[in-house]
Amino acid sequence: MPYMNEKNIVYHHATVTRARRERLNGHKSVVVWFTGFSGSGKSTLAHRIEEELHQKEVRTFVFDGDNVRHGLCADLGFSAADRTENIRRIAEMCKLFVEGGITSFGAFISPYREQRKLVRDIVGASDFIEIFCDCSLELCELRDKKGIYKRARTGEIGEFTGISSPYERPENPDLILDTGNISLEECATSVISLLADRGIIKG
Amino acid sequence: MPYMNEKNIVYHHATVTRARRERLNGHKSVVVWFTGFSGSGKSTLAHRIEEELHQKEVRTFVFDGDNVRHGLCADLGFSAADRTENIRRIAEMCKLFVEGGITSFGAFISPYREQRKLVRDIVGASDFIEIFCDCSLELCELRDKKGIYKRARTGEIGEFTGISSPYERPENPDLILDTGNISLEECATSVISLLADRGIIKG
Repeated sequence: MPYMNEKNIVYHHATVTRARRERLNGHKSVVVWFTGFSGSGKSTLAHRIEEELHQKEVRTFVFDGDNVRHGLCADLGFSAADRTENIRRIAEMCKLFVEGGITSFGAFISPYREQRKLVRDIVGASDFIEIFCDCSLELCELRDKKGIYKRARTGEIGEFTGISSPYERPENPDLILDTGNISLEECATSVISLLADRGIIKG
Repeated sequence: MPYMNEKNIVYHHATVTRARRERLNGHKSVVVWFTGFSGSGKSTLAHRIEEELHQKEVRTFVFDGDNVRHGLCADLGFSAADRTENIRRIAEMCKLFVEGGITSFGAFISPYREQRKLVRDIVGASDFIEIFCDCSLELCELRDKKGIYKRARTGEIGEFTGISSPYERPENPDLILDTGNISLEECATSVISLLADRGIIKG
């Protein structure tokens, strides 16, 4: 039966739960969060893993600047407050995807521990996997074919992580990937093994 | 290969598309949007349909005040601007769920044509199904066990649709359900038939 809370929001009984969706899908759902410098391979890796998981019939979704900054967060700029609000909304959305039975991947620089803690708190620690794409700034700059670091160096782009804005390394991530030195293939395999080890997907 | 747009947002090639997800799931994904007075049966109906669809192995999700107002839109109040922003974010999220292969149900009063047009525009007309829960205000008030209409009548709750704020009937909805007079069962069957007729789910 419907009931109502103090804010005049009416609730209704849902019978299709996350657990039932997970059973239907044949796998559990979590949020896998990639953090690291621009160019450290977060998005490329997320899409590669998604491809492999899709072939295993795992329901996935990748969140990155592409599908978030032009839509859900189109009203936000790049101030400190807006960046935090951007991360908050993404986290809330990831949480709903988890509830919907989909394992989602967040590929955002998310340079501050506080931001990543916010995601963990919103999503819930048991559904959150933090992966640090640990590629040196030098290598990220070297690989930067589009000149984004160059524009950061000249100051054309301000508050650029690693150049004009700090990156706080994760203190206790679930996985550290040396994305500057090991192959995309190898990185993807590590993440997929972790998901299998944790019982999220079948091994 | 990654490329970059004018706003310094880096894009990466996604290989898992909506079409592939739909193939994996065995059904297409759309947004089904219920509009109508508080108490017209939107949420109850959405959850009932979700239950039936889940049993047919259709991937679904219901958005209502419950899972949105306390999370993604927790920062928003009930001013006109905030209500529109609330609807905008929900629409953007529904769009991402469609992309993720999930058919989502929006159960929001959404009293203004402009709001519903916003959802349609964001989601895309071909993925949007508008359903009008056409229950008379009198019946909604009569059924109101929790006294929310009573509090609206006394003015304790302001800007309440139908009492102190207008409801604009949809001009051309995909379906009108006489939720005041026909059974929940019958309403659910009509919606599911519509989804089958449109080729969203198997008939």
